[in-house]
Amino acid sequence: MITGLPEPPYVSVIFASLRPLHEGSILEDGYGAAAARMAELVVQQPGFLGVDSARNTEGFGITVSYWADEGSALAWRRNLEHAEVMRMGRERFYEAYTLRVATVHRASEFERP
Amino acid sequence: MITGLPEPPYVSVIFASLRPLHEGSILEDGYGAAAARMAELVVQQPGFLGVDSARNTEGFGITVSYWADEGSALAWRRNLEHAEVMRMGRERFYEAYTLRVATVHRASEFERP
Repeated sequence: MITGLPEPPYVSVIFASLRPLHEGSILEDGYGAAAARMAELVVQQPGFLGVDSARNTEGFGITVSYWADEGSALAWRRNLEHAEVMRMGRERFYEAYTLRVATVHRASEFERP
Repeated sequence: MITGLPEPPYVSVIFASLRPLHEGSILEDGYGAAAARMAELVVQQPGFLGVDSARNTEGFGITVSYWADEGSALAWRRNLEHAEVMRMGRERFYEAYTLRVATVHRASEFERP
């Protein structure tokens, strides 16, 4: 799915992460269930505009979530269930990650006619 | 690879795209060679800070490139060889894409001890 284009400005949270590989496969560690639950919860957050996510077969993934403003992005960060999953992320889901908060100024889209 | 963290503010270009699938596989259409050439060229651009990219097995991918400022991001957009590849992208590499330009304000990282 490609998230559509709200009118800028709005906030993007860019999360790049590396999942541990175990003998060439991504480890089953409860991540799938946690990710599904977060997908269910996040859409209920005020100010949530959408999310795009892709992970390759080497375990490297990028998730970009979009928010009406910094306050709504921050409120999601403070959601208790999400905070617990973030803790599990540092404990076992991710080898490493980067997190960036950025304000979208311009946006465009293309769709094959 | 996860791109490291320069000191904010800097510019991110968030490109989400859908590659056409052909009987469940991503079509061989010259995309791999074009992407490799772009990866070679982009690192030579003034103001280029890094790039993160992931595409899943369904053909959905996110590429985020990082730039010192809007001018350097714009100069890459105007690079002639890149412009030709962007044209090929609309013609055949992508079913659809979105492109967002955003200013990074805050960034953090985690690495498993």
